[in-house]
Amino acid sequence: MVKLIGDERLDYLLAENLRIIQSPTVFSFSLDAVLLSRFAYMPIQKGKIIDLCTGNGIVPLILSTRTKGSIVGVEIQERLYEMAIRSVEYNKLENQIKLIHGDLKDMPNEFGYGKFDVVTCNPPYFKTPAKDKQNLNEHLAIARHEILCTLEDVIRVCSQLVKQGGKVAIVHRPGRMVDITELMRKYGIEPKRIQFVYPKQGKEANTLLIEGIKGGQADLKLVPPIFVYDENHEYTPVIKKILYGSENG
Amino acid sequence: MVKLIGDERLDYLLAENLRIIQSPTVFSFSLDAVLLSRFAYMPIQKGKIIDLCTGNGIVPLILSTRTKGSIVGVEIQERLYEMAIRSVEYNKLENQIKLIHGDLKDMPNEFGYGKFDVVTCNPPYFKTPAKDKQNLNEHLAIARHEILCTLEDVIRVCSQLVKQGGKVAIVHRPGRMVDITELMRKYGIEPKRIQFVYPKQGKEANTLLIEGIKGGQADLKLVPPIFVYDENHEYTPVIKKILYGSENG
Repeated sequence: MVKLIGDERLDYLLAENLRIIQSPTVFSFSLDAVLLSRFAYMPIQKGKIIDLCTGNGIVPLILSTRTKGSIVGVEIQERLYEMAIRSVEYNKLENQIKLIHGDLKDMPNEFGYGKFDVVTCNPPYFKTPAKDKQNLNEHLAIARHEILCTLEDVIRVCSQLVKQGGKVAIVHRPGRMVDITELMRKYGIEPKRIQFVYPKQGKEANTLLIEGIKGGQADLKLVPPIFVYDENHEYTPVIKKILYGSENG
Repeated sequence: MVKLIGDERLDYLLAENLRIIQSPTVFSFSLDAVLLSRFAYMPIQKGKIIDLCTGNGIVPLILSTRTKGSIVGVEIQERLYEMAIRSVEYNKLENQIKLIHGDLKDMPNEFGYGKFDVVTCNPPYFKTPAKDKQNLNEHLAIARHEILCTLEDVIRVCSQLVKQGGKVAIVHRPGRMVDITELMRKYGIEPKRIQFVYPKQGKEANTLLIEGIKGGQADLKLVPPIFVYDENHEYTPVIKKILYGSENG
């Protein structure tokens, strides 16, 4: 049994055989978070991983199927943190996934510098607009806008948390790519691997996946792009596999 | 009639109904130069365009079919400059295309600052290796290695030549993308449009097309990627159209 609050639902993560608590008015994970969980390098047998802006815990939950290492998820919104806690308990992953209710900017003091093998983050995408233009739903506004942390906060903290030679993987909008690569270099993370996600053939990319190495050498690879929909507006085989675990989903 | 020297050939540019002098031992244009000529923004009715590292003049020749503006091509190697001159004459484009035998670093003094609407460049891709690792053919070595100009020289000169609001389009390897965007910002060019070229589906990108605007606002677009070959190792329709002028080429 699981306790569901308000309009929460217990959704399936089909490809991972897990379940996750979501709420349309509080937080639902996006395809971007799933793609980040698939894109990021993962040590298989052991290692320390931390996911910032973890929301309802979608990234740690998926990562738990890719690594035996320990995973920390950090979320500043208590309501989302509570959802993540219940999802982790429901999936009996308390031994692998630890959730923290706190501000990512406090994590380097909490854990020390250079302690993690991998840092992942699906941060807010939008610069903070005027107060009256922000999403009126505070939960969604904080998740989507740079209200409680800026892109520079995110990348600085990623750099503080990751060890030399460790990896930082971020999902964001392509329009911020130059800001991200500039900030990564500013904080000693060399961009090494980029993947763009296009909604379909012939359309502009709408998602950027980027991984850097702390103290790495300059040598960027552009891995094959992902297309989300085919010409019939159906998910492409690669997306079906990611979401449903098979291409026939 | 056209004078051909040594192993030079008079090749067709089928899509443009033009011809160009090439030589396998001195210089042959690459698909990258053709893609740059198609990627760069062009004013249709008028404008001033300059192409740096013009080689045998491939980029100015193709651009002449896209604009009525005046085009300057700059090439430091006299042997290539002479080939370009003869190609321009053969195609009777002397009124539109002016070729200069000189060092791109001297062009801002030659033309003045901020005089061009568009600057294009297909620069040498490779950092200068040890002398004994360089291509033994001097013509090819200069075209491929940063012997006579570095990436920073190229981008600084592009910025000096282009006017405020004008465009700079460069083709390079994806591995240098972060260096290029960093240098563009250093010299006041904001990266605005990027296109990656992948040899085929499922392979890493091997070519980067990037366009920036002098003094532009940050707002990068990732335009749809190009795939060169299909699963049968044949050119894709988009490449056939670019090279042959029709998809049945």
